[in-house]
Amino acid sequence: MQTVVVLGAGNVASHIIKALIQNTFQVKQIYNRTLQRAELLSKEFNIPFTDKISEIQKADLYIIATSDDSIKEISFHIPYPEAMVVHTSGSMSIEEIKPGLRRGVIYPLQTLTAGRNLEYEDIPIFIEAENSQDLESLRKFAEKISLNVQDLDSKARLKLHMSAVWVNNFTNHIYQIASDFCAENGVSFDVLKPLILETAHKIEYLTPLQAQTGPAKRRNQDTINKHLELITDKELKEIYATFSHLIQKKHAQL
Amino acid sequence: MQTVVVLGAGNVASHIIKALIQNTFQVKQIYNRTLQRAELLSKEFNIPFTDKISEIQKADLYIIATSDDSIKEISFHIPYPEAMVVHTSGSMSIEEIKPGLRRGVIYPLQTLTAGRNLEYEDIPIFIEAENSQDLESLRKFAEKISLNVQDLDSKARLKLHMSAVWVNNFTNHIYQIASDFCAENGVSFDVLKPLILETAHKIEYLTPLQAQTGPAKRRNQDTINKHLELITDKELKEIYATFSHLIQKKHAQL
Repeated sequence: MQTVVVLGAGNVASHIIKALIQNTFQVKQIYNRTLQRAELLSKEFNIPFTDKISEIQKADLYIIATSDDSIKEISFHIPYPEAMVVHTSGSMSIEEIKPGLRRGVIYPLQTLTAGRNLEYEDIPIFIEAENSQDLESLRKFAEKISLNVQDLDSKARLKLHMSAVWVNNFTNHIYQIASDFCAENGVSFDVLKPLILETAHKIEYLTPLQAQTGPAKRRNQDTINKHLELITDKELKEIYATFSHLIQKKHAQL
Repeated sequence: MQTVVVLGAGNVASHIIKALIQNTFQVKQIYNRTLQRAELLSKEFNIPFTDKISEIQKADLYIIATSDDSIKEISFHIPYPEAMVVHTSGSMSIEEIKPGLRRGVIYPLQTLTAGRNLEYEDIPIFIEAENSQDLESLRKFAEKISLNVQDLDSKARLKLHMSAVWVNNFTNHIYQIASDFCAENGVSFDVLKPLILETAHKIEYLTPLQAQTGPAKRRNQDTINKHLELITDKELKEIYATFSHLIQKKHAQL
């Protein structure tokens, strides 16, 4: 599996192309519905592009790296009936791809920001395919990019994606909430950044259970009440109370 | 201000002693109500210890680094009526310390785990004192330890502490929730660690607003619904829905 066509031209497509090129795969072509973004990627990586799916070239593997709701339609228009076609979405089933194609999934578990340099070999990749031969091909392919490649079916992948939404999307929104409190408080959000980093690094050597600290864990109701009084937004007050309750419940089980 | 007595022998006391010694302050004595922990610290740093507060020595500064609810009582038993006495708590007012003493606060904003090596100069320290001369002494003192020393009154410090509870305690509990989902799912929690680290590192160069991604921000209600179906715990389902709503509200304001 040496030649690849990438369908899509967003952040995920861009990182996938970069990872493929770093690992000496040949990206034969980029397809995107609109030319502008494909053209940018094409220039950056010196790869031909097209906005006509009927004109995509023959390749060993087609990677659909578009938004979730485009996967199905794009897969239906790939003009090679026996092509191996994978998507890269955590939340979409392998069955989103047109039946009859050699269907698969390559899900890289990371937040892929434009322009950000990432060590691709550290990013866990979860693979799925309908037959064992394709699964082995995908494994060999993914293992050239990442040191951590695992099989995962669509149902488990959805649950993993849901967990990723908690640790990435919701954690980032907690940063947002704290940043808003800092603004109200006349303190720069920067002062919280060493704490934010240390919180993430602590779980490299402690479990979340061991790493838990704070008034909720200590059952320090005075501090919890003082904090709740400071929060005027009803939803935030509720989240604060619920987290405190969940932490206490978790640590009462021990 | 060169000689210091530290009252308390927990994680905070231990890190404070270490930071003081690294910066060539003389820690004359450790006081703790129970001998065992004080003895451990005493051996580690070669500092005399006592469990009798009446026997603590004269020093330029007394740092109370105990649990919040011991601060008041300990301050009342310090046998030097004009001593400079500070506590290190984010959530307690300067007024917790006995009136008449030269009262102050030194609040290091970081999670201080036992045995963990930290770069003390990167930890923001917030100071407060009742008179300007003591405030300047505390500033000079704290600036020998940290590159980031700021004035903050008790009210603003409580709000900052509340923000720290969000980014540290609640974020860590999100790691806990995700870890529990992984266990149910037969996937190692380790696979989420690169994402957790990248989430924290991203806000070094992006605001939380710029860093936000995911189904809630994209208003991808299909994925949100699929995730909600996977969550059986009622409180977790509510938090998921509330975070999704808060993210949408925040990004609709723009």
